[in-house]
Amino acid sequence: MLTFVGLGLYDERSVTLAGRDAIRGADRVFAEFYTSRLVGTDLETLEAFHDTTVEVRDRAGVEQDPEPVLSAAEDSAVVFLTAGDTMVSTTHTDLRLRAEERGIETRVVHGTTAQTAAGSLTGLQNYRFGKATTLPFNDAHGGDGVPDSVVATIEDNRARDLHTLVYLDIKVDDPHWDDGDETYMTADHAAGLLAVEFPETLGVVVAQAGSPDPTVAADKLEELAEQSFGDPLHMLVIPGSLHPIEDDALTALAGKP
Amino acid sequence: MLTFVGLGLYDERSVTLAGRDAIRGADRVFAEFYTSRLVGTDLETLEAFHDTTVEVRDRAGVEQDPEPVLSAAEDSAVVFLTAGDTMVSTTHTDLRLRAEERGIETRVVHGTTAQTAAGSLTGLQNYRFGKATTLPFNDAHGGDGVPDSVVATIEDNRARDLHTLVYLDIKVDDPHWDDGDETYMTADHAAGLLAVEFPETLGVVVAQAGSPDPTVAADKLEELAEQSFGDPLHMLVIPGSLHPIEDDALTALAGKP
Repeated sequence: MLTFVGLGLYDERSVTLAGRDAIRGADRVFAEFYTSRLVGTDLETLEAFHDTTVEVRDRAGVEQDPEPVLSAAEDSAVVFLTAGDTMVSTTHTDLRLRAEERGIETRVVHGTTAQTAAGSLTGLQNYRFGKATTLPFNDAHGGDGVPDSVVATIEDNRARDLHTLVYLDIKVDDPHWDDGDETYMTADHAAGLLAVEFPETLGVVVAQAGSPDPTVAADKLEELAEQSFGDPLHMLVIPGSLHPIEDDALTALAGKP
Repeated sequence: MLTFVGLGLYDERSVTLAGRDAIRGADRVFAEFYTSRLVGTDLETLEAFHDTTVEVRDRAGVEQDPEPVLSAAEDSAVVFLTAGDTMVSTTHTDLRLRAEERGIETRVVHGTTAQTAAGSLTGLQNYRFGKATTLPFNDAHGGDGVPDSVVATIEDNRARDLHTLVYLDIKVDDPHWDDGDETYMTADHAAGLLAVEFPETLGVVVAQAGSPDPTVAADKLEELAEQSFGDPLHMLVIPGSLHPIEDDALTALAGKP
């Protein structure tokens, strides 16, 4: 049995009770932290909290060498942990399909996500979000500024009067979670990049989503580019037009001018 | 202090540890179940599980008469529960803004959502979903078949090669959670309605999301309309074109022909 457990948004308490129970009942616990991370905790804390050993796999250790995970799951209860929800990346779906092919039963325990928090913390209505996009670092896409595909997604959504959730790049140079050499794109950096394409446009920053004290800020992208929003993770929303209650919410909760 | 806690997708174990702790630490616990419900549990079980009394408010009791909630939150720790994430409806944002206006500190503890599960359980990639929509019962919109706005959303997403998550109507006649007189639209009913507008089109049913044994089924809408998918809640996805891994996932996990 291979159970995929989403650890949720922020720290070791972001997991659901169902997820916690799955971890408790597991013979072995694997994890990957190359698609996303829990910024409010570290591996040691997570292991102590769940009183277990977590075997962290890097990308190659999941995609090219899934054998240790799969063979363990053939005859014991194995949990595979990810930050956020599980199955958010192709890499997880691929692992699940490989398990199913071998006749290993799989199960999914959901986690809380940045996608949900983006609406929930800002008061922007869930059903008014269009397709989401990710803004990469310059060196990740080999060009300057904002890739055309990101601009097109935002323009497309704006043309339909929809909000766009912009995930910000996470550069993970080392597969080990607690080595501290990763870089998260900040919302002010992202706002600066996007202001070139979308001048005089409202942006909404959501930072530390899932933490006890998240940051939410709404202003023109040029203004957001001059501020700083504290610890990662950051994300940015480019709203369509605002319904009255959305406008009220951004004014009250996000300091919209 | 007014803490909004999302109970998550399915039963009393779908809440996060952070949410459970907020409930434990509360002086009073309110809830509403008119925007969504936890189908895997009932009020009595929820109260016993958290060893607390849950004061359920109907829509009027939140929107027209929020005073008991707000005045309690002025000088004690109050938790307000919803199914799924919190803040998904205008009604919650409105309550939060009223609290903020009165100088009451508010906090949000996220829950797992159907939106996330729709991608996670099907293998359909998260970033390929466009705007979501809700399919109402005929008598809720006063017409026959599928409202134009629902058709337009699906067509718009398909034109952009995006998936559409279709939430299915919940008819709640009585504000009390455990009275059993609510009706949930089933995915086969929805598939039958949508097949008229979108003949020979692939649909993906997700039912009992968040439960230990959810149902996922992919087939033409006409075929889905002839099947039954068990207990609520149901939802339906109308995919855009499928990437190879999405096709593999629907074949392996959802029995796509």
